[in-house]
Amino acid sequence: MSDVSDWWRTSIIEMEPGVIRLRDRPIEDLIGTVSFPQMIWLMLRGDLPTADEAALLEAALVASVDHGPQAPSIAAARMAVTCGLPLNNALGSAVNMLGDVHGGAGEQAVELYHRIDAAGGAAQAPFEIDRWQAEIGKYLPGFGHRFHTPQDPRAPRLLALVDDAAAAGAVAGRFARIARAVEAELAARKGKPVPMNIDGATAVIFAELGFPPPLARGLFCLSRSVGILAHAWEQMGQGGRNKGPTPPGYRWTYDPPDP
Amino acid sequence: MSDVSDWWRTSIIEMEPGVIRLRDRPIEDLIGTVSFPQMIWLMLRGDLPTADEAALLEAALVASVDHGPQAPSIAAARMAVTCGLPLNNALGSAVNMLGDVHGGAGEQAVELYHRIDAAGGAAQAPFEIDRWQAEIGKYLPGFGHRFHTPQDPRAPRLLALVDDAAAAGAVAGRFARIARAVEAELAARKGKPVPMNIDGATAVIFAELGFPPPLARGLFCLSRSVGILAHAWEQMGQGGRNKGPTPPGYRWTYDPPDP
Amino acid sequence: MSDVSDWWRTSIIEMEPGVIRLRDRPIEDLIGTVSFPQMIWLMLRGDLPTADEAALLEAALVASVDHGPQAPSIAAARMAVTCGLPLNNALGSAVNMLGDVHGGAGEQAVELYHRIDAAGGAAQAPFEIDRWQAEIGKYLPGFGHRFHTPQDPRAPRLLALVDDAAAAGAVAGRFARIARAVEAELAARKGKPVPMNIDGATAVIFAELGFPPPLARGLFCLSRSVGILAHAWEQMGQGGRNKGPTPPGYRWTYDPPDP
Amino acid sequence: MSDVSDWWRTSIIEMEPGVIRLRDRPIEDLIGTVSFPQMIWLMLRGDLPTADEAALLEAALVASVDHGPQAPSIAAARMAVTCGLPLNNALGSAVNMLGDVHGGAGEQAVELYHRIDAAGGAAQAPFEIDRWQAEIGKYLPGFGHRFHTPQDPRAPRLLALVDDAAAAGAVAGRFARIARAVEAELAARKGKPVPMNIDGATAVIFAELGFPPPLARGLFCLSRSVGILAHAWEQMGQGGRNKGPTPPGYRWTYDPPDP
Repeated sequence: MSDVSDWWRTSIIEMEPGVIRLRDRPIEDLIGTVSFPQMIWLMLRGDLPTADEAALLEAALVASVDHGPQAPSIAAARMAVTCGLPLNNALGSAVNMLGDVHGGAGEQAVELYHRIDAAGGAAQAPFEIDRWQAEIGKYLPGFGHRFHTPQDPRAPRLLALVDDAAAAGAVAGRFARIARAVEAELAARKGKPVPMNIDGATAVIFAELGFPPPLARGLFCLSRSVGILAHAWEQMGQGGRNKGPTPPGYRWTYDPPDP
Repeated sequence: MSDVSDWWRTSIIEMEPGVIRLRDRPIEDLIGTVSFPQMIWLMLRGDLPTADEAALLEAALVASVDHGPQAPSIAAARMAVTCGLPLNNALGSAVNMLGDVHGGAGEQAVELYHRIDAAGGAAQAPFEIDRWQAEIGKYLPGFGHRFHTPQDPRAPRLLALVDDAAAAGAVAGRFARIARAVEAELAARKGKPVPMNIDGATAVIFAELGFPPPLARGLFCLSRSVGILAHAWEQMGQGGRNKGPTPPGYRWTYDPPDP
Repeated sequence: MSDVSDWWRTSIIEMEPGVIRLRDRPIEDLIGTVSFPQMIWLMLRGDLPTADEAALLEAALVASVDHGPQAPSIAAARMAVTCGLPLNNALGSAVNMLGDVHGGAGEQAVELYHRIDAAGGAAQAPFEIDRWQAEIGKYLPGFGHRFHTPQDPRAPRLLALVDDAAAAGAVAGRFARIARAVEAELAARKGKPVPMNIDGATAVIFAELGFPPPLARGLFCLSRSVGILAHAWEQMGQGGRNKGPTPPGYRWTYDPPDP
Repeated sequence: MSDVSDWWRTSIIEMEPGVIRLRDRPIEDLIGTVSFPQMIWLMLRGDLPTADEAALLEAALVASVDHGPQAPSIAAARMAVTCGLPLNNALGSAVNMLGDVHGGAGEQAVELYHRIDAAGGAAQAPFEIDRWQAEIGKYLPGFGHRFHTPQDPRAPRLLALVDDAAAAGAVAGRFARIARAVEAELAARKGKPVPMNIDGATAVIFAELGFPPPLARGLFCLSRSVGILAHAWEQMGQGGRNKGPTPPGYRWTYDPPDP
């Protein structure tokens, strides 16, 4: 029988009475010293980022906080509050919704970039796009937007920050080249722009910084939690009871069974 | 019948195709410009904090990220991953657990401080402690710790930062005085120290910064989400399937019904 | 240090390799022998109900399964599926929303009936209504409906079943009398009917059967889980990606800050 | 712009004031008339099962309610209650954990049986086992148990009920033959029994009854919700605050980073 003390193992935290060490650093040395994005990096990876790396991570965290009450996660948080839930439970229901479709595009975009990188880099984008569409699906994660036409305003700003960091030697910049090669190839195939969106742009940052694909989703969850919390709190101030998606009069369409 | 467009109302975000404005500021002006804690403040309150205010908020966010796999929220995240859940759902189950007992002490401590402040300030602590115990319960939120004896290492560090900010005129410092008055009174009554813990100390910061009590819990959720994510990700790397709380041999004690 | 095997204690289940006993009964003696509602009762209370008791519980479980995609819980399940979540996670986000406002009215109605019962029975309804409104709030849980006018079709059917059971001596019937006294008093005060709704009627059943108030909410959660699952599954068949509450064109109303 | 009333469509429910129709049947005709398992079937599929079909579904629902506080879902529910969560939120965190590993084996077993059935039936089990292991993984869902040796007590009882139903002509019985062929082949390959477990046995029932694979997970969630609720409620009676997986003294093993 394995020892019960071995059942859970971690390299993240060690504690004794009066002592908390996170990634081997006393907590009191971190408080007031490292920034919140640096702490996020430290907890996930065990080391501290450079200032330039932390700045890129911070930009990605700032960029994704909210996309309005049309986003299912934001709507769920507001609905939850009108059901009487406190903020932690509103967050629980809402963050839970950041699944493959709502929160997974960034993770998938990092995977796409990794494939192109492993195949040799940006010049291989057309072939890897073909392979992605053959193996996974027609939809290329991180490009195009059903609402933001011609372009998601967050993407060019994020890419400009990556370019600056690459020019300063803080990151390699090869995932920015890969993402732009995908964007160019899609435009050529479609005969019109299919611009990078927020997921494609934050995926460039996460790939440049060396985060594995699932953490792209994890970091998106941390960022979007801010918007979820803000909307839940605003709804709490507005009141309302059991608010469904639409006003009572609109309801839904009933499709009767075939006779 | 109310207009469907009026069903959800918000002052947080406005969008048009190609345009995202958060709290009336174009998102591209915020990315790379404001820090993540500043963004959190902006989303929750509508304005930007001073640098000193943002630094205090950042310290509180850094301080609460983790308390190890003994904390139900952290354990739940690790267990969830061994059930096959991706990171967003592990976060969903775990953040959900930050209820009144696990995530609510900071909120309750802000309420306690507000009561004392409304009664006239630190000198009223003894009377308000009596009133709290008569109306709400024996347990004073934010003071004492079942594990960290003699003292939670996070609290003095956080209070030192508040003192610095108060000395610089960045915050008033009256909630730090109130919290220390509670600590002194509890020590006098018990005949031994009942030191401020992490919840009592972050509550001082949130109260000094003007956050209402429920947001003390909300901000704690944002902070603890970092530790939840880190432990979920570490567990994902370790593998394991359907890990319950203890190794299979230990199980539980069965209390048979009375004959 | 307490023994780890004592950390969790239960009277519900005992296991050895090859053996599962629920409430002291071998699982193989229950499968195919007891009904699902009987099993629910056994798990929650430790004994088996009479056939008449089980029939009343079953009626309450059948009655509350669904209230359409306007209900936040049902909408959340459908939205969750369009975010890519599998059924267990859609249930997680949706059942979570059955909070004080959405899932708590039955629990509160049982509390109201218990107060009246403790005060002496149905004749005390007017005084206890006054006390409820003075201490808790204007809204009497379990009576009136914002949509179903003149009456929720589920309530009279459920009450008829309680009447039959009371006539047969299977239940006492005093909570049915209490609920009808509340209904009569509210009608007299308002000058128009304020009929019992689904929560008020299932609360009569739960109170007659001796379930404590929190289990009224718990049993409602089991019932509503059926509708949540059915809608999540139907939505999975329909497809759709990231469906927010309303079509993209409707969005929300932006309330700009004061200048 | 699509009409907002068309945004959500359903064949499950239609409502008008005073009217609720589920699957085209007035709710008042269902209450007190159909059993809870019949209602579950009606909601998921649109028609009512025969008495024999309903009995098999009921047996599967009864069989899976609980596997003790070692199961992550049950442990999560108990931990959640000690964090201060009410029953709906304890259910939310716990049901959420019934993911691919914890709640998905039944779904996967139905898929395995469908593959064998599509290939020609029980005689094809060896070839389809090979194909499963080559395409999906070494582990065959629904067979073997890490705790219940020699055998999960629920499986033979459930299979006996299927055999009875097949003998009565209520179900075809071909999925029972397929499952037994898998069991026989695994025993031959391993040189020792690898008996069907609860997931393999309920999957036989769900496949015989014509439920598609994802609903095997969905129905398991409904069943396990009963145990989750019972344990949450029992824990609520026991009290306890912030109970982690093990007593405070046991904690976890710290793996320091390499120097």
